[in-house]
This record gives sequence, structure tokens and C-alpha cells, in this order.
Amino acid sequence: MGQNLILNAADHGFTVVAFNRTVAKVDRFLENEAKGKSIVGAHSIKEFVQKLKTPRRMMLLVMAGKPVDDFIELLLNEGGAEPGDIIIDGGNSHYPDTTRRTQYLNSKGIRFVGTGVSGGEEGARYGPSIMPGGNEEAWPYIKDVLQNISAKADGEPCCQWVGDEGAGHYVKMVHNGIEYGDMQLITEAYDIMKRGLGMSSKEIGDVFAKWNKGVLDSFLIEITRDIMYFNDDDGSSLVEKILDSAGQKGTGKWTAINALDLGMPVTLIGEAVFARCLSSLKSERGRAAKVLGGPTPEFSGDREQFIDDLEQALYASKIISYAQGFMLIQNAAKEYKWKLNKPEIALMWRGGCIIRSVFLKDITAAYRAEPDLENLLFNDFFNKAIHTAQPGWRNVVAKAVLWGIPTPAFSTALSFYDGYRTKDLPANLLQAQRDYFGAHTFRIKPESANEKYPVDTDIHVNWTGRGGNVSASTYTA
Amino acid sequence: MGQNLILNAADHGFTVVAFNRTVAKVDRFLENEAKGKSIVGAHSIKEFVQKLKTPRRMMLLVMAGKPVDDFIELLLNEGGAEPGDIIIDGGNSHYPDTTRRTQYLNSKGIRFVGTGVSGGEEGARYGPSIMPGGNEEAWPYIKDVLQNISAKADGEPCCQWVGDEGAGHYVKMVHNGIEYGDMQLITEAYDIMKRGLGMSSKEIGDVFAKWNKGVLDSFLIEITRDIMYFNDDDGSSLVEKILDSAGQKGTGKWTAINALDLGMPVTLIGEAVFARCLSSLKSERGRAAKVLGGPTPEFSGDREQFIDDLEQALYASKIISYAQGFMLIQNAAKEYKWKLNKPEIALMWRGGCIIRSVFLKDITAAYRAEPDLENLLFNDFFNKAIHTAQPGWRNVVAKAVLWGIPTPAFSTALSFYDGYRTKDLPANLLQAQRDYFGAHTFRIKPESANEKYPVDTDIHVNWTGRGGNVSASTYTA
Repeated sequence: MGQNLILNAADHGFTVVAFNRTVAKVDRFLENEAKGKSIVGAHSIKEFVQKLKTPRRMMLLVMAGKPVDDFIELLLNEGGAEPGDIIIDGGNSHYPDTTRRTQYLNSKGIRFVGTGVSGGEEGARYGPSIMPGGNEEAWPYIKDVLQNISAKADGEPCCQWVGDEGAGHYVKMVHNGIEYGDMQLITEAYDIMKRGLGMSSKEIGDVFAKWNKGVLDSFLIEITRDIMYFNDDDGSSLVEKILDSAGQKGTGKWTAINALDLGMPVTLIGEAVFARCLSSLKSERGRAAKVLGGPTPEFSGDREQFIDDLEQALYASKIISYAQGFMLIQNAAKEYKWKLNKPEIALMWRGGCIIRSVFLKDITAAYRAEPDLENLLFNDFFNKAIHTAQPGWRNVVAKAVLWGIPTPAFSTALSFYDGYRTKDLPANLLQAQRDYFGAHTFRIKPESANEKYPVDTDIHVNWTGRGGNVSASTYTA
Repeated sequence: MGQNLILNAADHGFTVVAFNRTVAKVDRFLENEAKGKSIVGAHSIKEFVQKLKTPRRMMLLVMAGKPVDDFIELLLNEGGAEPGDIIIDGGNSHYPDTTRRTQYLNSKGIRFVGTGVSGGEEGARYGPSIMPGGNEEAWPYIKDVLQNISAKADGEPCCQWVGDEGAGHYVKMVHNGIEYGDMQLITEAYDIMKRGLGMSSKEIGDVFAKWNKGVLDSFLIEITRDIMYFNDDDGSSLVEKILDSAGQKGTGKWTAINALDLGMPVTLIGEAVFARCLSSLKSERGRAAKVLGGPTPEFSGDREQFIDDLEQALYASKIISYAQGFMLIQNAAKEYKWKLNKPEIALMWRGGCIIRSVFLKDITAAYRAEPDLENLLFNDFFNKAIHTAQPGWRNVVAKAVLWGIPTPAFSTALSFYDGYRTKDLPANLLQAQRDYFGAHTFRIKPESANEKYPVDTDIHVNWTGRGGNVSASTYTA
């Protein structure tokens, strides 16, 4: 990642100093990929700092966590970084760490920036999505280089100032959570085609190729097509040979935990993370497969129509996932007192990053037309899209349920949609239960209020007629 | 809660000293509920400590968090608690706090116990489920009183020593998570009867009454029956008037976060927590209901049969939820190095607490027969039960999907079941994607290994044929 970012910056006319604690790596890089480019090597942290012009712009790409703190201390102590200098953390740091580091370095006169960088190896080399946040004083000094090396979408750089403190890494975290969701949705579509319709990898690849020309046009659909077409030397599909035990780097998990903490129902990312957890129980699943039975999928009807329904199911679920993601971002902005700009976030994700897609162009347009849009589902374009998609979406989920093919993400997206559009959910019963057993009280629907049960009042009912009329409180014995 | 526990202990022949910082509350309690019982009041923390015989057994029932720490300091400083004394925290503390307090107080010679207490007001008064953990040295001194005041199930006290440090509060946390799940499942069944079948509260109450005589026989089904029968003065159902915006005390959320942290797919509790979050967006849902449409439920067929299917859907989902809960507990024991006894945990939940049920008798039996059972679903009884339930379960979820009634918990339970029993999940594609864009590498299925793609090896493929053959690492620029 670091090497590729350096090469990218050099290609854009910037002179870059490269350093790695394993000095041999620096030399190898200079003699090979960096040869003939405006890239200078440094063999010590001190040399690295001294070779840069002030105010120095120093970017770290090290593992998240303690290595970042250690490297910052190295730059300050051994390196001799000075007030006014800028340190940029381009790793996958957790946003509270970035908030802490911004404050700490600010106290030393150093401007700290924590930036999300997405796009994998290719993106880093030829234009990633860059999401910087932290000390805004640094922005004028780094804007030029970061926007130059970033991806462009319709001519606009996929790099904008996100916000104070950990806002950049926060938005990158949500990006990764959404990436988990997108990937999970694609695997569910693949599983339905493979096990539900009995299609070969080549046939499934053809479907992804077709989808990549429509509303689902995106990097992840494109690479899925390539993967489906990729064969081992014996001509059989390589993907079918890959172990179905998925790893995670933790950012999806962070998003799900943050959603729980903020009380936002970001169910699709939650299910996507849990699906990876379940996949990792490979040997336990093997034992379970022997004793836990289920139906055998049998398809009848119009196959092409069903594949179109599947496209709609994927599209609608994706709309829900992004709607949930922006609900979370909107709430985080309130909670952490950050000014987050939704159209610019959507713009940053349009190009360069893993979730880049035509779809994000529509989201950018939706938020540009109405920056205070309460929810993506209230936007005309997405409202119409989800209405068109509904019958196919329901058909696919119902079939998967009857076939015994797991669709945790498709299903939770649909449950969310049906819950979100329900004025009166059954949580009234839940409140009654909580009051029954724990005297937790409830409130009355405004339209049902009367003298005995007034509106906006915490009400406790003695449901059993037994015992005292004690409502919940705390007591010491 | 505290008052009721005191009355409970007094009824069992123990003399109890009661204290509250609001001294008037103590006097009011002594003059009313406590009158004529072996209950002594204290008007200061010092008086409270001095009136107890050594080693003192002092139980706190204060709000979780800082109040517990404050009260502990009060007992140590103002109160004059001495080495050998026992402090019991009976509130809803978060287990890491209990671990910390056990260690801290151990350093002062004080034995600390953090105990979950479940059963609401009624339970506290007539026999709750009690889940103590912490410093095991305390157990012989408190076993008698705690087991006496606890609920009994077939003559066995629903109070056993859980384990070291925060183990007691941990098990209580998971209990609460499961409680969230049970409640959510019941509300989904209610919603399907109400909106899918158009049934009245009275009719729904009759169904819960019937279910309470079968496999679902439990406290929560029983109180749901009562709630469904409970009318306002005008003869209309009270529950229908209650605001559908559910609160939470955070323990369900803690369970879901812990599941994410431990990488365990405890999806049902996750969805139950998110369902509460969604319910709390009441006004936003009201606006969404106006612009987001869906199908109109129409039922045809055998209604009684469908209600039986619904019972099976609830039962099967509940089996999944408890299987997930015990997966989590099993993993936590490994992670935190606690010796947790699964049969005794099931036994503790059999009586007194909110999730008490006949069902937990079967779980206790399953774990007593095979304490190292890998998963509840491998037990013959539950294996048969879930196979019997399957057709009805799938029918209900498919119908809800087509009707537009949200069933996040039913659906996620089914997706988990179908995923858990799948030897080859589509996560192979996910691993290919991760390797494609991020060079994250993958492994090969043992049965598909060959010379080019050997088993147990991290493999990276150059999917595009472009670019270098760099696998993911970290680099500093």
C-alpha cells in the first residue's frame, strides 16, 4: 500500500522520501519499482525527517494500534519533528484513536490528520478514495497532493476534507462496514444461483457481467465476474476450490459495535459481520451438515425472470444498506459534534474505493439535491427504485427460505424495510411486557390517550392485581 | 428490587439490616412493608456496617456504573468495612467492572461478589434466579442465604456459583440478551397474528394461553397472555394503546457487542437489539409509512394449521437463540479462562428469572447428559424438535416476507440454521474478492488442493494479470 502510494505521488510530480524500519526494503524498492522516479530513500527516521521541507508532510502507513503511537513518538523524539509539521496516518486506525492523537499532537503544535484510504493495491497505485479528517489547519498544505493522487469521478477528486478529529477514519470505518455488506449480498446472490438454480461458475459469471452493465455496475460486481471466469489450470473454477472461511480486519465489526452504541439499526452490516463469524466455524459446520437436514432446492418457472428478481433483490438490499449507513453517519455527526457533509462523503466513495459504483452517483445526486434529506428512502429516485424492486426481492427471499439457502443480508434488509415503513410496530407488546415484569413503565399512543392513561406520561399498570404498586427504582439493602 | 429482596430474606428467617441514603425511605419501609419482620433499619452507612455480624455480608442494589464504585468506597471509608467482609453487588453491572472490582477488593482483603439477579419485582420478592460470581472464598458464607431466597426448580435452587471474576454478571448479561430475543420473537408472532391473520387481542390471548400449555410454556408467554386479555375501562385492549417505542437498559446491547468482539454469530440477540432501536424511531417511521408502500397481507388456507406453524416457528427460533447464547458462553469461558458449568447455568435460568420455562428443563437435561456438548443442535431432543418444526417455520417466514410483515428474529434464526448446517458456504467468493482487491490471500479446500494450490498455505493469485505480485503488508512512506 505504502509503496504504491509513493509511486502514485511521484507520477503526479511530487518528490517523495521513503522510509521503512527494515532498511533493506527501502533499498530494494529504490532499485526496482522506484527507479528513475522522484523518490528519495531514507535509512533512519532522522534522515527521513531532515530530508523533508517544512512544514513537513509525513504520512504513516503502519498497522493500526500501538505501531501508530510508537511511530509518532519516533518522529517526535528521534526524528525531530517540529511545531507546524503535519503527520498523516493513512492506516486503518480506529476513529477514537485518531481523535485522541489529534488532541495530543495539537498540544505539541503538530497538526495531525487521520485519513481513510480505500482502493486496495490497485487503488493506492492509480488513485484511491481518500477520506482525511483531524486538524483542519493541515488541509491547505496537503489538499494538493492528496487530491492529485486520489481517484476522480466525473472530474471531481474523491478526496475532500471530512471533518474534525476522527471523522475521516470514522467515515472510512463506515465505508468498510458497507463494503462488508456489499460483499455479503453478492455472495448470497451467488449461492442462490449456484445451489438454488444449479448454475456453473461460468454461467454465474455471465450474470454478473450483465448486472455490471445495469444498476449494479460497480467494482465489486466487476471483480466477481472476473473471479467467476477464473479457472485453475485444469479448466475448473478456482473460486469453487477456495476455503469458505472468511477473515476480517475488524473494521466491519467496529461499525456494527458503533451502530449498537449509537442505537442505530444498521442491521445489514451486523449480519454481514456475523456471516463471516459463522463462515469461520468451518469444521463445526462440517459436523452440523451431517446431522441437520433441510429441504432440497427445486426451481420451476421462468429462470430468466428469477435472475432478474435476484438482481432486484440485490439492488433493493443495497439501497437499504446505504440508507442504514447514512443513518449511522448522520447520527454520529450529532453525537460527536462533527460537521459531516453527506454529498461529499458519497462523492468520495464514487471512485477509487472498493465500494465505488454508479449507484453512488445517484446517492451523491440525492444528497446534493437535498443535503438535509432525512433518509435515502425518502428520495424520489430511491423510493421509486425500491418500489420497483419489491416484488422480485420478496420472491427471492421467500424462495431462499423455502429452499434452505441462508440469506441473512437479503432477509434483514427486507425486515428493516418492512419495519421502517410500519407506523405501529409490535413493540407496544414489548413495552407492556417490560412494565409487567419490571415495572419499567410505558407511554401511551397520543391518539389513544384518555384521562386514566394520559399522553407523555410514564405509566405503570398493576397487570396482575397482586403485589404493591412499586415502579422500578434502586434501593440498597 | 432491594425492598423485595429484603422481605424475601426476612421471610426465610434471616435478619436483615436495611439502608438507603434517602433515610426517609428506610423509615417508610420499616413502618410499612417491613413491619413485624426481622428487618432492622440503619440511618447511616456506619450504622449499617456496625449492625452486621462479621464477616459482614453486605449487598448493594444500586444503579450500575459509578454508583457501585462510590458505594464500595463509602463502605470502606465511612462504613469501616474490614478484611474478611463480603460485598455483593446485585445490580446489573457490566462484567468487566465486576472483574475489576473483584481484583481491587481482593487487594484489600475484602471478598467481592457480583451477582446477576433476575425475576423483576415479583421474582425478587418470592424467589429470583441468582447468578453469583467473583471471589469464590465468599461462596460458603453466602450460599445459604442466596440459595434460600432464590427460586427453586423441581426442588433445586436456581442459584449456583457461576465462576471467577465477572462470570456471574457475564451469565446474567447473556440471560438478558436471550430475554431480548425471546421478547422479540413473541412480538413477531403477535404481529403476524394481528396484521397477517387479522386477529383481535382476545383471540391472540387465547393462542398464547394454548401455547403456554405446550413446548413454549414459559413466564413470558404467560404474561403475554395476561397482557392480551388486559382491557382498558372502555373494554378495549390496553396493549393496543401502548406506544410502540421500546426502551433498553443496555444489557442486550452489551451481549451483542460481546458477541461481535468474540466473533460469535449471536444473530438473534443482535436483531432483537436493533429491532428496539428501530422501534424507537417512532416519528421517522410515521413519515416513512406515508411514502413507502408494500403488499397487503391476505391469508387463505387453514388458519389453525398456520397458527400451529407459527408456534413451531417461535419454538425453532427459540432453540436457535439459546444455541447461540450457549455458543457465546462457551467461547467466553475459553477467552476469559472461566470454568463455566453449562448444566448449572441452564438450571439457574429454569426458575425465578424472566426467561424461565419448561424449555430450560430440556436444556438442563441436554447438558447434564453431555456437559461437553458442542452445540445444543447436536442434542437428540433439540435435533428432533428443530426438524419437526422446520416446515412450519419456513412457511411462516416465507409468508411474512410476502405479506410485508417484518420478522427480523424469525428470519435471522432461520438463516443461521441454514448457514450452520451448510458445509460449503459462499464465503469462498468473499475470500476471492478480498484477495483480488487487497491481496489478503486465501486458503484452499483440502479436497481441492493440488501442487499449484497446496493445502494450509496462504495463497495469493494475480487475478487480473496486471500489476505486481505484492501481497498485503504494511509499509511506511
